[in-house]
Amino acid sequence: MILTVTLNTALDLTYRVRSLRPHASHRVSDVVERPGGKGVNVARVLAALGHETTVTGFVGGATGRAMRDQLGGIPGLTDALVPVAGATRRTIAVVDELSGDTTQLNEPGPQIAPAEWGAFLDRYEELLDGGVRAVALCGSLPPGVPVGAYAHLVRAARAAGAPVLLDTSGEPLRRGVAARPDLIKPNTDELAELTGSHEPLRATQDARRRGAHAVVASLGADGVLAVTPEGRWRATPPARIHGNPTGAGDSAVAGLLSGLVQRLPWPDRLARAVALSAATVMAPAAGEFDRDAYEQLLARISVTGDSSAA
Amino acid sequence: MILTVTLNTALDLTYRVRSLRPHASHRVSDVVERPGGKGVNVARVLAALGHETTVTGFVGGATGRAMRDQLGGIPGLTDALVPVAGATRRTIAVVDELSGDTTQLNEPGPQIAPAEWGAFLDRYEELLDGGVRAVALCGSLPPGVPVGAYAHLVRAARAAGAPVLLDTSGEPLRRGVAARPDLIKPNTDELAELTGSHEPLRATQDARRRGAHAVVASLGADGVLAVTPEGRWRATPPARIHGNPTGAGDSAVAGLLSGLVQRLPWPDRLARAVALSAATVMAPAAGEFDRDAYEQLLARISVTGDSSAA
Repeated sequence: MILTVTLNTALDLTYRVRSLRPHASHRVSDVVERPGGKGVNVARVLAALGHETTVTGFVGGATGRAMRDQLGGIPGLTDALVPVAGATRRTIAVVDELSGDTTQLNEPGPQIAPAEWGAFLDRYEELLDGGVRAVALCGSLPPGVPVGAYAHLVRAARAAGAPVLLDTSGEPLRRGVAARPDLIKPNTDELAELTGSHEPLRATQDARRRGAHAVVASLGADGVLAVTPEGRWRATPPARIHGNPTGAGDSAVAGLLSGLVQRLPWPDRLARAVALSAATVMAPAAGEFDRDAYEQLLARISVTGDSSAA
Repeated sequence: MILTVTLNTALDLTYRVRSLRPHASHRVSDVVERPGGKGVNVARVLAALGHETTVTGFVGGATGRAMRDQLGGIPGLTDALVPVAGATRRTIAVVDELSGDTTQLNEPGPQIAPAEWGAFLDRYEELLDGGVRAVALCGSLPPGVPVGAYAHLVRAARAAGAPVLLDTSGEPLRRGVAARPDLIKPNTDELAELTGSHEPLRATQDARRRGAHAVVASLGADGVLAVTPEGRWRATPPARIHGNPTGAGDSAVAGLLSGLVQRLPWPDRLARAVALSAATVMAPAAGEFDRDAYEQLLARISVTGDSSAA
């Protein structure tokens, strides 16, 4: 199975309002509630692609129960979340009906006690011992989790022989990269914060020197740039895609993991990542992907580059 | 006991952000979660004043469980809520740290099935049969509840010999007033919507002609205007009170009910309502009241009027 780790899981709420005006009162016309946090989103896409997937991380409170109730209904997905005393955070996306623009409100997440972090590490080791084909470490750290957490989890996965993808930002990314993950998938802002460079190719190469074996930089609507030990590629969607980019990065991570466990060549992995990402932007519900669009897009992703230029 | 009815209960969340900007992403620095809906707020204040109080209305889902968990911890308060299949709504107050201003997002509430409305009516009759000193009917109606609901509940309370206060707005208020409640407590907007008049005294007198035995019109920071069969009064706080007006109207309702069941003369009931309302505005947490401020204010409320001018 593929293991995704989401230390700061979330109950994601999407609210529809006519138009958000600060300091006014709004009637929410529609509420959608679903399990969230980057690794949970990745797992949902992997399960939809037919991969046996296990989610771990922390869960707690009434929000956590609501999240687990919904996770339990997804075929192919196993819940290995670790209970904590605090409550799973909510994130709220307030969508303006008039403009389609979104205002985001993110709760910080529960305070994690040292014993809870210890219980998670035990569970993570158990899951790795049970046989894992790939690990994805995703998203922000809740309060109380040490900033070097991902470095530790990268090393444990590598020691267990599981390839590991790291998708986070800031200091947790900086420390995690130094532990030599197999793959990172930063966007241009995260890459610039890590390396100090706003030039994508230079920054991607620099991120590899800092420890990442392979770097797939997400360039938003322009697709991805991959610099790997096997070569260097650009993958681009056929046209500019319109829609809601929420979850597009998580779908790209799922595409990369799916291609990795199936041992596809890099160009095919990148095409899968870009097609899934674009099909997520096109889907009417935030964070879902449009399966027909995905299948049609897959053959239409342009991948350029070669296997000697890394 | 005093019975408060909240058909559209809520889990009230207060979020603190630096400054709300539409279409941006915000980190919430602080989350406060508490049981809400107007009648629940009224019951909390009544219980704090030492009155045995029962809350009824609808409750459901994970949000409903979270609300009940917190209600269970309030001494003097009995939970007689009726379970429904839908989930209790959330309301979110987003407070700007910089300005102190609040942006409000209100979910619509669960769809109530006809059988669920029937189950509520049975429970309400049971509670009335058990002996009730006063009934408060508070707030908006969730989807599926008939717009004439409050008229029906007013008549049932009066048939059981319980004095009944109605605090709602729009068409549910219009229909409820026609059923002759003992008391309504509209604010100036609600009163204008009911009567078509923006002149408080004229509108208050008109509301009585429409069926309310007594009308206590809330004039915001200027206190209240009461027109009753026993006389007509104005009650005013000693100075303009600064703070958060969330819940001030619900505290005024609690003050009126508390004075009613203790058979206080109208001037004392009104002083209690205005002092509780002002002490709620002054409290640091939205919807709580500052007990010391309440006790100090009580003797300083100016009540003018007389018993013959109704």
